[in-house]
Amino acid sequence: MRQIETVTLEDARRVIAAGERKAHEIGSPSNVAVVDAGGNLVAHIRMDDAWMGSIDISINKAFTARAFDIPTGDLATSSQPGAQLFGINGSNHGRVMIFAGGVPLHGSDGNVVGAVGVSGGSGEQDRVVAEAAEAAFRSVPAPA
Amino acid sequence: MRQIETVTLEDARRVIAAGERKAHEIGSPSNVAVVDAGGNLVAHIRMDDAWMGSIDISINKAFTARAFDIPTGDLATSSQPGAQLFGINGSNHGRVMIFAGGVPLHGSDGNVVGAVGVSGGSGEQDRVVAEAAEAAFRSVPAPA
Amino acid sequence: MRQIETVTLEDARRVIAAGERKAHEIGSPSNVAVVDAGGNLVAHIRMDDAWMGSIDISINKAFTARAFDIPTGDLATSSQPGAQLFGINGSNHGRVMIFAGGVPLHGSDGNVVGAVGVSGGSGEQDRVVAEAAEAAFRSVPAPA
Amino acid sequence: MRQIETVTLEDARRVIAAGERKAHEIGSPSNVAVVDAGGNLVAHIRMDDAWMGSIDISINKAFTARAFDIPTGDLATSSQPGAQLFGINGSNHGRVMIFAGGVPLHGSDGNVVGAVGVSGGSGEQDRVVAEAAEAAFRSVPAPA
Repeated sequence: MRQIETVTLEDARRVIAAGERKAHEIGSPSNVAVVDAGGNLVAHIRMDDAWMGSIDISINKAFTARAFDIPTGDLATSSQPGAQLFGINGSNHGRVMIFAGGVPLHGSDGNVVGAVGVSGGSGEQDRVVAEAAEAAFRSVPAPA
Repeated sequence: MRQIETVTLEDARRVIAAGERKAHEIGSPSNVAVVDAGGNLVAHIRMDDAWMGSIDISINKAFTARAFDIPTGDLATSSQPGAQLFGINGSNHGRVMIFAGGVPLHGSDGNVVGAVGVSGGSGEQDRVVAEAAEAAFRSVPAPA
Repeated sequence: MRQIETVTLEDARRVIAAGERKAHEIGSPSNVAVVDAGGNLVAHIRMDDAWMGSIDISINKAFTARAFDIPTGDLATSSQPGAQLFGINGSNHGRVMIFAGGVPLHGSDGNVVGAVGVSGGSGEQDRVVAEAAEAAFRSVPAPA
Repeated sequence: MRQIETVTLEDARRVIAAGERKAHEIGSPSNVAVVDAGGNLVAHIRMDDAWMGSIDISINKAFTARAFDIPTGDLATSSQPGAQLFGINGSNHGRVMIFAGGVPLHGSDGNVVGAVGVSGGSGEQDRVVAEAAEAAFRSVPAPA
């Protein structure tokens, strides 16, 4: 057996709150979702006036960032026609999102312990909100 | 066109907080989800130690309660073998949940404006948590 | 090759209008859908305040009534536990509805040329609305 | 809670009738669908000789135009290989349509209150029909 770290609901709320603040700040009503180390949803919010079609996308950006331990924006490059992962979004029953806005959350040992997914604005806006959300996770030391 | 009322993210958070308090009180770690008048997710939480398989169930109990404007526990009765809605859970692409834990949220005019879905414990526990969540919605008068 | 008869959009509108009138008359806001001889949707309406969860059900009741050339209420009996078609609703990707409200439309030669599906009220209300809709189809002689 | 506007069945019929007239005029048998503010189907027609495979497309173009508050033709550009939303059509369980023919319907306050989706011809034909349908919505002032 082994021990793994994973995010708690309290962590997820802190991450979401930071994302929401940034989204307000840049005027991009967003969906923000957090998944745990198992890739399963811990919490989600849709800000008023955020796109309904982005509910699914935010949750699946978080899933994707944890499923491959990579920011989804990086995956975009490698899934273009001609690139090595072209077609990867056909896997995992349509849950693989290949554009910016999903960012892994790293634990005290450097492992990925969850992820945050943001959807609601342009790829650039989603990335900015997701990174602000992720920063709020890193800023809190893991419990002793 | 016509005007309808729908829940806000602020409403959803109040409803979820009340559900979470009740779930703590009765010792039933739960998923709690709120959908709006269109049946689309507004917010979701999974309490630590709540079942992973209940993420989907909580969201779809909320969907069901809004889709048919009925507590999902009531639907359970009418979908039993021999009853008039036997088989209804085969509709809507597997999103119809036919056991207790989904409760409609009513607006100031008596119309359904969203719903809350709870999953994590027994049907009875889920019902108790969902009703506590719903009560928190009713207790706040609609804005003038 | 062979000739088959199938409903037109004009037929579908007449059927739907008759269903809508009956639904108003009995106070049961309904979804009403018509499919053609191929089981494919020709037209659908959701009356204001009819259940959102009944969109899918009305369309699939019509599909089912054409798929098996039978009123869906009849199928209910034979799909009960212990009966010969128990489990049939697991087929056809969740499109088989096994409660009242789907009725075949018969052409001048007695063949099934389409179907109407109604969802929004009790099984009995849906059946009454669907039969009124179907009657409007029968009342018009086929073109010479 | 908050108030939102949404289309009625009467609105949907007016929109569909205008789309149908334009489709006749340009000789492009079409499916025309209208969804409400929640993205849920209000009404659909398939004109005689319109493609059967376009039933689903018309409904989902309307869904997409509401889900992202954008004409689906605009989404086409941003979902091309190399563009920021490449892969978005893998989200929302295959309901995101990324070619022309889905157009949002705007309410008296400028918010999106529903959408119309058209499928049956070329992208250009579908766009022309959808815009004619949308124009019929705008031409009627909202009730006081």
